[in-house]
Amino acid sequence: MKFPAPVTIQWIGQLVNASTIVGDENAQATGINELHKVESGDLVFVDAPKYYDTCLNSAATHIIINTSEVQVPQGKTLIVTENPFEAYLKIVDHFRPFAPADKMINEKAIIGEGTIVMPGVFVGTDVKIGKNCRIFPNVTILDYTEIGDNVVIQSGTVIGGDAFYYNTKKDREVWYRRMQSCGNVVIEDDVEIGCNCTIDRGVTASTVIGKGTKIDNLVHIGHDNTIGKNCLFAAQVGIAGATTIEDGVCLWGQVGVSKTLTIGANTQVLAQSGVPSSLKGDKVYFGYPAEDAQVKRRELVWQKRIPELWEDVKQIKKILDQKA
Amino acid sequence: MKFPAPVTIQWIGQLVNASTIVGDENAQATGINELHKVESGDLVFVDAPKYYDTCLNSAATHIIINTSEVQVPQGKTLIVTENPFEAYLKIVDHFRPFAPADKMINEKAIIGEGTIVMPGVFVGTDVKIGKNCRIFPNVTILDYTEIGDNVVIQSGTVIGGDAFYYNTKKDREVWYRRMQSCGNVVIEDDVEIGCNCTIDRGVTASTVIGKGTKIDNLVHIGHDNTIGKNCLFAAQVGIAGATTIEDGVCLWGQVGVSKTLTIGANTQVLAQSGVPSSLKGDKVYFGYPAEDAQVKRRELVWQKRIPELWEDVKQIKKILDQKA
Amino acid sequence: MKFPAPVTIQWIGQLVNASTIVGDENAQATGINELHKVESGDLVFVDAPKYYDTCLNSAATHIIINTSEVQVPQGKTLIVTENPFEAYLKIVDHFRPFAPADKMINEKAIIGEGTIVMPGVFVGTDVKIGKNCRIFPNVTILDYTEIGDNVVIQSGTVIGGDAFYYNTKKDREVWYRRMQSCGNVVIEDDVEIGCNCTIDRGVTASTVIGKGTKIDNLVHIGHDNTIGKNCLFAAQVGIAGATTIEDGVCLWGQVGVSKTLTIGANTQVLAQSGVPSSLKGDKVYFGYPAEDAQVKRRELVWQKRIPELWEDVKQIKKILDQKA
Repeated sequence: MKFPAPVTIQWIGQLVNASTIVGDENAQATGINELHKVESGDLVFVDAPKYYDTCLNSAATHIIINTSEVQVPQGKTLIVTENPFEAYLKIVDHFRPFAPADKMINEKAIIGEGTIVMPGVFVGTDVKIGKNCRIFPNVTILDYTEIGDNVVIQSGTVIGGDAFYYNTKKDREVWYRRMQSCGNVVIEDDVEIGCNCTIDRGVTASTVIGKGTKIDNLVHIGHDNTIGKNCLFAAQVGIAGATTIEDGVCLWGQVGVSKTLTIGANTQVLAQSGVPSSLKGDKVYFGYPAEDAQVKRRELVWQKRIPELWEDVKQIKKILDQKA
Repeated sequence: MKFPAPVTIQWIGQLVNASTIVGDENAQATGINELHKVESGDLVFVDAPKYYDTCLNSAATHIIINTSEVQVPQGKTLIVTENPFEAYLKIVDHFRPFAPADKMINEKAIIGEGTIVMPGVFVGTDVKIGKNCRIFPNVTILDYTEIGDNVVIQSGTVIGGDAFYYNTKKDREVWYRRMQSCGNVVIEDDVEIGCNCTIDRGVTASTVIGKGTKIDNLVHIGHDNTIGKNCLFAAQVGIAGATTIEDGVCLWGQVGVSKTLTIGANTQVLAQSGVPSSLKGDKVYFGYPAEDAQVKRRELVWQKRIPELWEDVKQIKKILDQKA
Repeated sequence: MKFPAPVTIQWIGQLVNASTIVGDENAQATGINELHKVESGDLVFVDAPKYYDTCLNSAATHIIINTSEVQVPQGKTLIVTENPFEAYLKIVDHFRPFAPADKMINEKAIIGEGTIVMPGVFVGTDVKIGKNCRIFPNVTILDYTEIGDNVVIQSGTVIGGDAFYYNTKKDREVWYRRMQSCGNVVIEDDVEIGCNCTIDRGVTASTVIGKGTKIDNLVHIGHDNTIGKNCLFAAQVGIAGATTIEDGVCLWGQVGVSKTLTIGANTQVLAQSGVPSSLKGDKVYFGYPAEDAQVKRRELVWQKRIPELWEDVKQIKKILDQKA
């Protein structure tokens, strides 16, 4: 998330009740982001010592951290506070406060010419919908979603749900605390989405569905995924978080894709397969873990030959026993 | 889809801006359908030369086609146009124009005696619901759906979503263009459907759920499926398009079924299995690809014996080495 | 289900039109429950001779049964009727009659301070929601649900759907008749539930989601499940009925869990696994059927060695042939 305008580190320090600022108090912060999305000028937060170095040496210019006993790279600033996670929540809450909706269509939503929004549709604050879209009954489009032209969203689908993304501490009574989402969903032109799908918004950045991609029913697309153009996802596909699916990828029914990986362009993954790690493009994959479909099919044939092999070995042992 | 009344080929030719009519201009067309659903008197469309012959020799009487250089069977007519797919869309749009709903219950919907439609339910145009049904809150029932008596539809379910069915051309900027659905969903008496299911309508014909069938939550039933009587589908089952499931079939949780196949009567398919091709009735199946459950279970046992086999072969090789 | 106040067996006998009462007509019934949930003072029903003994010797004090030709344990009563299943339906219908809702928020629902219920949310009769909850647009919360404090329920989720639980008789025209649910859903404090999930109510008792548990999108939790505290269920997980998941269990994406089993505390089940039987706690499981993940991973490696084994055996056979 970028802030509406840059703010000083001093201002941030006061907001989060920082104990110390290390570096230039007058430096400016342009936004706050997660480690893998962070850009120069942005804030990032870290509380686990094992990630200190990665964060200090990331693209982030300003680090919210629970120690001052670290080597600070030149030109960077530390905002030291006992609980960086709480500081993150405070900043998000300031710039994107939770807005309890009280009507189905928010008056700040922008809806383009020729777009039809049918009954029972919820449209949240700061939503933008382009031209000639069809939003079917009982769809939910949550805050900050951006939708292009000629987009179809069928009934029961929810766009912009909060990310399933938690801060975990097993010594608390409640182990998991949600890392509040301040990102959004961006749906490009000519995308069509089926019924009862769920597309979550990015934690701090955007979940993107590329131009011309078509999605069947009951598909789950987690936070911060980047889906390419002209992809085809069959029913009940699920994609975890922060994964990249390149252009022209087909995922058949009930395929599951794990987080933070890449599926190369024009790949096909056959039904019910599971993808635990990145796949190169222009190939057909199958099984769990998903492998080259031809290799996998041969493996299935080999598996059926075990009893024959067993019989052979039994015979061989008999022959050797007789000879002994 | 049947037309409300037969129309002349001449009239169709004008509607789709045909370049030529081959055959009797005064012949009458009774409807338009896909190849596998088409009946005598109907129109069908074809644009790929490899399907010309199949279409010309199908039950269709009238063929919308992008050539006149074909052998026309006697009594049939060609409606020649550069883009048969666009002609299809124009015809569907004429007879079943997209009707943007502006209220939750359409005034043209027919709702039987004793049927309870709870708050938040959307009922589209030309929907018929029989007697003594219970439609729970936030259900969506889209245009042309027909529902029998004593049917229960639980919250969040969407009946009659558009088919996931596309015209594909990879030399266009947008590869996939939806083949607009003009079919519907037919739900027979005593069917019960759980929460957040999706049942898509047929592309040109009907998706049918047979009498007495019971469906759990989050189940996907694709376009043009024919589901028999007294079937039982557990949660998260998914069935692709144009498949036939005969009477008394049980599909357990998370089973996936591929398109255009048949599952015979009284079959059981165990949880998480995948069905890529037709299955004979009166048996129990398991695994991916789904096989006779007993055979499959034995295979799982054999797979655990590979290390033992490996050890045996190692011993045999040692013995043979010593003898050499 | 407990009755609002105890009733006499004589009164129950009249309600269900019993042919005979065996035992004390003035004894009191405190509720009606299924066999595995039944407590002293409760009614239970049985119509299949093979379950007569189990029911007679269960915790139930009063048995609705279709025979009087059984040995009645001391202090128990029989309510004899031709169709015990119909008697069950009659009792449930009397104490929890189906209430057709006519507005989105029932006036008998209790909603705590600081709780935000957004537009398009349905809240049924006798629902209790605690403090500081956020109920997102288009959620459905059905009758008798109890929700604690600080609970988040995201859009499209349905809480309290009827159990997928049927009385089966294949000599009827309609094989399956729903065993009407009279239980509810109980969601403890600090639970968060994603979009388009379905959590069914107990048949006669409660489906419970323990404090601090977090659930992603499109998750199905069947009737009468007991989910522990601080569990984490990723998207598209499905849990059948009457299963117990202990505290701190993680189920990753698309995992399926069968009915009436127990998963021990702090267990992890990796993505797409299937759990057909109980699992001990504090371990990582994988595959179908889910096994110790390390054992399963080794099995996958062994499977790839079959062709090598085949080649070895071929060579050995050749050597033996030459020697013969």
